[in-house]
Amino acid sequence: MRRLAHGDNAGVHVVIVGGGFGGLAAARHLARARVRITLIDRQNYHLFQPLLYQVAGAVLSPADIASPLRAILRRQRNAAVRMATVDAVDAPGRAVVLDNGDRVDYDALILAAGARSHYFGHEDWRSAAPSLKTLEDALDIRQRVLAAFERAEWAERDAEQRELLTFVVIGGGPTGVELAGTLAELARRTLAREFRRIDPRTARVLLVEGEAGVLKGFPDELRERALVDLQALGVEVRLGKHVQKIEPGRVVVGDDPIAAGTILWAAGVQPVPMVQSLGVPLDRGRVLVADDLSVPGEPRIFVVGDLAAVRRPDGEWVPGVAPAAIQMGRHAAANVLRLQAERPTEPFSYRDRGTLATIGRRRAVAVLGKRRFTGWLAWLVWLFVHLMAIVGFRSRLVVLIDWAWSYVTFQRHARILRRVRPWEADKGAPV
Amino acid sequence: MRRLAHGDNAGVHVVIVGGGFGGLAAARHLARARVRITLIDRQNYHLFQPLLYQVAGAVLSPADIASPLRAILRRQRNAAVRMATVDAVDAPGRAVVLDNGDRVDYDALILAAGARSHYFGHEDWRSAAPSLKTLEDALDIRQRVLAAFERAEWAERDAEQRELLTFVVIGGGPTGVELAGTLAELARRTLAREFRRIDPRTARVLLVEGEAGVLKGFPDELRERALVDLQALGVEVRLGKHVQKIEPGRVVVGDDPIAAGTILWAAGVQPVPMVQSLGVPLDRGRVLVADDLSVPGEPRIFVVGDLAAVRRPDGEWVPGVAPAAIQMGRHAAANVLRLQAERPTEPFSYRDRGTLATIGRRRAVAVLGKRRFTGWLAWLVWLFVHLMAIVGFRSRLVVLIDWAWSYVTFQRHARILRRVRPWEADKGAPV
Repeated sequence: MRRLAHGDNAGVHVVIVGGGFGGLAAARHLARARVRITLIDRQNYHLFQPLLYQVAGAVLSPADIASPLRAILRRQRNAAVRMATVDAVDAPGRAVVLDNGDRVDYDALILAAGARSHYFGHEDWRSAAPSLKTLEDALDIRQRVLAAFERAEWAERDAEQRELLTFVVIGGGPTGVELAGTLAELARRTLAREFRRIDPRTARVLLVEGEAGVLKGFPDELRERALVDLQALGVEVRLGKHVQKIEPGRVVVGDDPIAAGTILWAAGVQPVPMVQSLGVPLDRGRVLVADDLSVPGEPRIFVVGDLAAVRRPDGEWVPGVAPAAIQMGRHAAANVLRLQAERPTEPFSYRDRGTLATIGRRRAVAVLGKRRFTGWLAWLVWLFVHLMAIVGFRSRLVVLIDWAWSYVTFQRHARILRRVRPWEADKGAPV
Repeated sequence: MRRLAHGDNAGVHVVIVGGGFGGLAAARHLARARVRITLIDRQNYHLFQPLLYQVAGAVLSPADIASPLRAILRRQRNAAVRMATVDAVDAPGRAVVLDNGDRVDYDALILAAGARSHYFGHEDWRSAAPSLKTLEDALDIRQRVLAAFERAEWAERDAEQRELLTFVVIGGGPTGVELAGTLAELARRTLAREFRRIDPRTARVLLVEGEAGVLKGFPDELRERALVDLQALGVEVRLGKHVQKIEPGRVVVGDDPIAAGTILWAAGVQPVPMVQSLGVPLDRGRVLVADDLSVPGEPRIFVVGDLAAVRRPDGEWVPGVAPAAIQMGRHAAANVLRLQAERPTEPFSYRDRGTLATIGRRRAVAVLGKRRFTGWLAWLVWLFVHLMAIVGFRSRLVVLIDWAWSYVTFQRHARILRRVRPWEADKGAPV
């Protein structure tokens, strides 16, 4: 490849699409570099996605896990933030195209736009069974869950009450397990004595998983333990069953129709469709990148995080987790600097530091290096790792307080409902 | 009046409409009484309205000032909460009518449904100039304000940029003064170095007031001081000017048209229209209650807070502030118990403990008894009084942390925008 930019290569313009873990790591890695950075995101904040389910469960406020990108990059004078949606990459023209038609030219491009929920061709299921990828999603789920209890309290018919107090979570990965666990604890503990006509402890929480166990990818002993922990929390786990049909208020699992007021989807994600504009081969929507994370044939475009399909030496895919996105973001930024210095890029290698999933109060499973943890100890590891990873001292302190308060009192503070009539189905955007 | 209830007068059903300061104080006062209470509110939370402007200014999260009513009343076993909207009172039928047609019978009724913003016959101004009475309002204002800066950063034309960076607050009462102060500090301090193309410090914040001074009702010396403080913060105050016209992006003040991307209304409130169904004389929408706070001719219906027009011995109206609503709520509840005991009710008398308004960092005015405070000291008094009044230890602690963090860093944590294209006008509900 020829030089990155015209002139002295110092005015190189690096465009980063996406302010999640990968994009933000890339921007920060370039803090002292002689480049201009434009970070483009549809949102004005970096979202700490691993705790999104706690917003859905009313444990945390949205702002506790959403840090303004401008505030994060305030002191990084070479970085500008643009709140916009990228529709396509025009690789021959070296520009990204925004959805208002504006073009942003780049000398080097890092695509870190992440994934969205995936309904495997059943797009009509999306409104009946919302998923959990964005802050809006989390608030929508919080609204539906809290409103279900309010509606059940004043429901006239027993069947209606039972339906409203049935919650089905589809998908037994970390998100599904966390959601089911937080719903079970909400019903059994937080709301236990707050209603006068219904007993929220009688609420049913079902977790549906097509595989033979939850938490695919974890060691078998931890998967077994997670199942036991879920059942101890009162979650009914349906394994080896696939969802055949979803309608508002009704889901068919295997041959079994279940009347459920709240149905949540945690069964799959896929990369944002914008990468299709690259015109290169994809693996389940992800770009099959070269070993330096560049797009084959496009040495100045790098792809990181959930958008990138990267194999480890053992042939397994690098998982779609935050540490992998951060490592890739830094690596792509370093490769941009190598191009700027007219040196060869280097291949990416993933350092797997472990994996964690929490099930509920004092229950989690963790793999750290070769060590495996369950129960209390895994839960403490989970708390510590997540707390330390949150951006900003203020959020860290407030999340710690909210966790401590919630642990001691069983209460959840962020139980705000939109002004709805509780006997009606909810429509519109959440507050 | 005959007995409150049939039978032994122990099963008296007290219906309270509204879970604000007045309604909640009434419910709590009845905690140990031999009555059944139904507290009806459109929302599932008690809102700490005095800090609503800090949600609009992105200092606090919604949940920090919104406590679930069910959680507050969890241990009060004689109280049930119903999330519903009351459309009318059927006094002859001794029932309130919900907007779905359901009726809730009562033996005694306490109306505490509060006020909403009032546009003096210009309902068409409501969408162009939103007001600040509910959590949804606060989030809508936060969205508009933050989006204005994002849009200005990428605006093509200078005139468009200037318009987007002009904020007009209409109404110089406490809410208007607080809003203008918080907007000025947001632009001058919080956002100062976060943009690359615009300088947020050049934003104009105008406060328009029809009277000759701000904070009507405060002593003259404090009104003067508030004006000086506002100007020191960079707020342009237009006194003695009335708003003639409001359209999206444009407000006419006196003869002066001002192009402003954000126009906020803080000029008036009026009671909710539901009280008209009582069919009794109203004063500016408020019920002219008897001296025991009951509705004339309806001894089992009491009206408290912003819904009630009550004169002090000096002929002045009791002001529409939280302490007055709390005192009235308790008094009405006590009078219900007197009726239950078949004793005569007692007249209400307002104890004025003082009044406070904050302008910005280290600037406030306060009257406590006969003492008057300004500047630092008044600001500390304001902080302490408000912090102690917030419901719940967790909220108090988190608000304290947010204030301290914001004070030290000038940052505001709750800067969440909906996923909007910043160059478009915003539509829809806020997150």
